[in-house]
Amino acid sequence: MKEPSDMTDPPDMAEPSDDSADAARSRSAAERLLAVLGAFDHRRPALSLTEIGRRAGLPLATAHRLVGELTVWGALERDVAGSYHVGLRIWELAALAPRGPALREAALPFLEDLYEATHENVHLAVLDGLDVVYIERLSGRHAVGVRSRPGARWPLHATGVGLVLLAHSAKAFQDQVCGRPLAAFTPHTLSDPARLRRALAEVRRTGCAVADRQITDDAVSVAAPVRGPRGDVVAAVSLVVPSAGTQPHSLVPAVRLAGRGISRALGWRP
Amino acid sequence: MKEPSDMTDPPDMAEPSDDSADAARSRSAAERLLAVLGAFDHRRPALSLTEIGRRAGLPLATAHRLVGELTVWGALERDVAGSYHVGLRIWELAALAPRGPALREAALPFLEDLYEATHENVHLAVLDGLDVVYIERLSGRHAVGVRSRPGARWPLHATGVGLVLLAHSAKAFQDQVCGRPLAAFTPHTLSDPARLRRALAEVRRTGCAVADRQITDDAVSVAAPVRGPRGDVVAAVSLVVPSAGTQPHSLVPAVRLAGRGISRALGWRP
Repeated sequence: MKEPSDMTDPPDMAEPSDDSADAARSRSAAERLLAVLGAFDHRRPALSLTEIGRRAGLPLATAHRLVGELTVWGALERDVAGSYHVGLRIWELAALAPRGPALREAALPFLEDLYEATHENVHLAVLDGLDVVYIERLSGRHAVGVRSRPGARWPLHATGVGLVLLAHSAKAFQDQVCGRPLAAFTPHTLSDPARLRRALAEVRRTGCAVADRQITDDAVSVAAPVRGPRGDVVAAVSLVVPSAGTQPHSLVPAVRLAGRGISRALGWRP
Repeated sequence: MKEPSDMTDPPDMAEPSDDSADAARSRSAAERLLAVLGAFDHRRPALSLTEIGRRAGLPLATAHRLVGELTVWGALERDVAGSYHVGLRIWELAALAPRGPALREAALPFLEDLYEATHENVHLAVLDGLDVVYIERLSGRHAVGVRSRPGARWPLHATGVGLVLLAHSAKAFQDQVCGRPLAAFTPHTLSDPARLRRALAEVRRTGCAVADRQITDDAVSVAAPVRGPRGDVVAAVSLVVPSAGTQPHSLVPAVRLAGRGISRALGWRP
């Protein structure tokens, strides 16, 4: 989840001319409302009115009024101790997100098959901004430890699913990612732009990514693309297994098959 | 999901005096933004800009500007065909809702045990407004057919989970529900206020609800309360089985046990 400070940037779309009179005033009101929602994140799922105001950068009276409106609508809920939480109405709305629950629903039978065949970690992820966002993870009690969970964001260059999504995105976007500092999580992480570019070329050639000990020292990820009805890559599926004693390339056919299965379920035809 | 027309009611909280100058103007802006989000529902998860404007009751130019702001923030996403959908950002926000994913996560092991023991339909639901909202459903291929799904709303009086939630709610709220028209789905539905009140008294006496053929003619639901840390009923769990050849009361101990297990996981101590 972005920090509230990211939310005060003005939107970059053109203003329709017949509406520009009250646009500045109203836009600011909309942004303040979104800043209230953006005050909540995984570390702070429950906030007092004062905390909401501070995190959203709003005077208390304004926060009070906006929180009241959001609570009436159901986007926020107040508990008996007086703290606010994200409300059920947001959860109902989220059920309509095609890149969240709808994608997960279509993918689940294929993810379950991949899990049944391996009893290791199975991931489904999408691209959002400069990050990978995990939509689902299936994992056995004895699977190798991983740091992903649904809703978590990770950098594109350090994950198998991220390499697949980045390799299939526009050239300008790849240049943007390769031109920024690339965090290293282990000595093996692809934190050098030249090595990252070579890895992306290899993903495009083979259609699959093998990310070896990129985030932890003991795990390797094998990832494949998921395509939408128009053939564009809309998600990635991966299998994360212990790196010791694994021949990652032996896992490629199974992961690729899962990716093709999910793509077909989404309406893709080869 | 409520219809957009429900969203234009003014919020009923007091306005802070030092903020009332621009309150009328800003409140209306906030309401318009929420009306855009409220334009999406299960029957219409993808909308054009024109449809959003029409469903939200907004001029096209205003809809255009608000949709732009919501898209920049990530609450909406635009696909290549130009339709708008609920965005990933809402899904990330929804993951923080204590009555959605957090409740489901705490309850899931107990729901799975109940499912493993019966291979029938297992439900978890909460009260919202005048409805039951289903948070989770586990169901076998051979379980009796039910009309619930996660995110669906049903009237309180016609479901086992609803009877449990209603029986444990405030007297004034029960009077409000019993004073409204009560829809009948089968000849057995508790659509008579006097019968409903007797059923609620029985639920309070036994701690469990048995809803026999209330929504379909072939299913019976056995439901039990889920309590939060303060002992208040925050959700209900149920088992829905074929009515033919079932002794519903034989299922009560298992459902009650699941309810107590989830309650303990939420921090309740008897």
